[in-house]
Amino acid sequence: MKSICGVEGVSAWGIKEGKFGLALIRASGTAAGVFTSNKMRAAPVEVMMERMKRGTLDAVVVNSGCANAYTGERGYRDAVEMCGIAAGALGLAPESIGVASTGVIGRYLDLPLIRDQCRRVAPLIARTPDAEDAAGKAIMTTDTFQKHALVETESFAVGGITKGSGMIAPNMGTMLAFLYTDAEVEGPVLRDILRQATRRSFNRVVVDGDTSTNDVALCTATGVAGSVDREELARAIEAVCRDLAVQIARDGEGATKLLTVTVRGAPDEEAAADVARTVVASPLVKTAIYGEDPNWGRVVAAAGRAGVEFDPYAVSLWVGEGAGRTPLVRRGEIVADLGAAKAAMHGKTVTFDLDLDAGDGSATAWGCDLTEKYVEINGKYTT
Amino acid sequence: MKSICGVEGVSAWGIKEGKFGLALIRASGTAAGVFTSNKMRAAPVEVMMERMKRGTLDAVVVNSGCANAYTGERGYRDAVEMCGIAAGALGLAPESIGVASTGVIGRYLDLPLIRDQCRRVAPLIARTPDAEDAAGKAIMTTDTFQKHALVETESFAVGGITKGSGMIAPNMGTMLAFLYTDAEVEGPVLRDILRQATRRSFNRVVVDGDTSTNDVALCTATGVAGSVDREELARAIEAVCRDLAVQIARDGEGATKLLTVTVRGAPDEEAAADVARTVVASPLVKTAIYGEDPNWGRVVAAAGRAGVEFDPYAVSLWVGEGAGRTPLVRRGEIVADLGAAKAAMHGKTVTFDLDLDAGDGSATAWGCDLTEKYVEINGKYTT
Repeated sequence: MKSICGVEGVSAWGIKEGKFGLALIRASGTAAGVFTSNKMRAAPVEVMMERMKRGTLDAVVVNSGCANAYTGERGYRDAVEMCGIAAGALGLAPESIGVASTGVIGRYLDLPLIRDQCRRVAPLIARTPDAEDAAGKAIMTTDTFQKHALVETESFAVGGITKGSGMIAPNMGTMLAFLYTDAEVEGPVLRDILRQATRRSFNRVVVDGDTSTNDVALCTATGVAGSVDREELARAIEAVCRDLAVQIARDGEGATKLLTVTVRGAPDEEAAADVARTVVASPLVKTAIYGEDPNWGRVVAAAGRAGVEFDPYAVSLWVGEGAGRTPLVRRGEIVADLGAAKAAMHGKTVTFDLDLDAGDGSATAWGCDLTEKYVEINGKYTT
Repeated sequence: MKSICGVEGVSAWGIKEGKFGLALIRASGTAAGVFTSNKMRAAPVEVMMERMKRGTLDAVVVNSGCANAYTGERGYRDAVEMCGIAAGALGLAPESIGVASTGVIGRYLDLPLIRDQCRRVAPLIARTPDAEDAAGKAIMTTDTFQKHALVETESFAVGGITKGSGMIAPNMGTMLAFLYTDAEVEGPVLRDILRQATRRSFNRVVVDGDTSTNDVALCTATGVAGSVDREELARAIEAVCRDLAVQIARDGEGATKLLTVTVRGAPDEEAAADVARTVVASPLVKTAIYGEDPNWGRVVAAAGRAGVEFDPYAVSLWVGEGAGRTPLVRRGEIVADLGAAKAAMHGKTVTFDLDLDAGDGSATAWGCDLTEKYVEINGKYTT
């Protein structure tokens, strides 16, 4: 097992038919969610923000192809109805079902299709490698690969699946993430852990700077494994979120390279994250990465507009990792060996390491290059 | 005349040799400047911020090809030296010369080249159509056309040239703009007028979300036409800035279409501008424009993350102008005729009109589509 089915108490299945997919994930337990900061929240997000006050879930139903966003009261009713349909198929109470949608904005759900897909998916629910694969595939839209992560400790496991490759921006970098653990944990503690983990993972991925209407990360704790060390659980959940976040960045629409930017020496962690995010979001940095062009001035220029206090002439910058790590700027002085820098940009991952010399804060953000393919994908998405 | 040479007291010339251009603009008078908000200010910007305290200029020297940005103390000395070179060529005092640079970041100026170009340009300075053309061409980098604007009233004129087509973002949408008027005006008044005009024009253009290290808008008032009505002058300067700003948006790197977004019914003008800028900056909106794809949900989703308070289900949205104007959303209800909407996106200009129904503020922002060509241009710029 490589994700959710590695967690005791979790079973799933999914179906993907053309653009339209549906997944059901069955797991009873304490649940917490983190949601999009976009004012235009999709109907399922509205429903879930309401529903999560209860703090427990028995299952989640997710569809891809239609976001059920900007669909008003009818959209809200449809999201509630979608829970009811899933509840009926699974023999559960409607109010114990979580719901999420992803796809085109401003279209109503095709409820007959969802009813039909639920009816076919429910009997296949299982705890197998095929099952987590089917669920992972069902929630994809423009993703080119499924995204799974699993951390197993001696006493418990944390697993998750996610989807997302476009409309990915600083506030909730993913569109949808479903995390599970068999640890036993109280609702408020789980919420705090999930918020912290999200802040350090999904909130540090930028593909295109657009924040989705549908972003949601849900974590359900089945409790099967009994109570565990809180710090250990927090570390495991954060590790799974980070693993999934990096996969989202690597699968950025049209991307050919993963961009990793670590900022050190910032006034604090959030300042470091602000600078790192600004650099990975910069279209000029992203196109330079694509062209393997060691135009490092763009990295420094992007850092300069992040709104963080530092002395531009105290910074140091490196590109590459391990033996290929090459200094570009050392305490404000240009030391770039452009040949070595270009070589350090040649692989599937390009890493910048920026030291601001302005404190002890550090953070990493992840993104990808900007290619002609991104334009092609998004110029022709709905039609 | 179509720009700066339409203003009495202004003469100019320029030269462009491969990537490297140089312009000299001769005009004595009261001067005011607005500068980049990027922390990584280029050396010429540092010099100018210092120099503008004096409040008068006799000439401006501008080079393209090298931004003299992130070049430290040597860069600062080079920018001062560049003023000295221009002063020598023009027979003026060095401290009365304004300086600006645009081009690649993190490279030192080629002072011998600048000296040579100054020597050749200075004797040709004139007040003719060819002269303003030569200056307009000299300051271009990735621009595909020169940008000129001129407003003539009964009593005075305002003219300007600008350059900029990439690294264009909310704070100072242009890289370089040089404005002139023959009106007589006090320094502080000119500064206020220029700030207001910049806020409503260059600050409302987004090509790629990157803020340049070198942005500057300079306005010199020769005073030849005597004193004028302040409001009339403010209107004329704003009109010239807006004209130039729209030209920058239209010439966005790789752009095939101008995108105009007008937001009405916002809590105030700045809130309207924030929403309008967020929409024109959205990569998903920009790619949809390119694909002539009436994926209007992306417009609404972008508006939702602008940080402005409004009720998503009170908004109305139209696409197109004049007879082709098509409603997409009316007070939260989807009314889109996708065929008509697609037709409204077919021309060289795509216009969205968004009414938030949350106040009296309105503002317009300008941008362009995102194309494969943008990626191509910026993936291979320095090498």
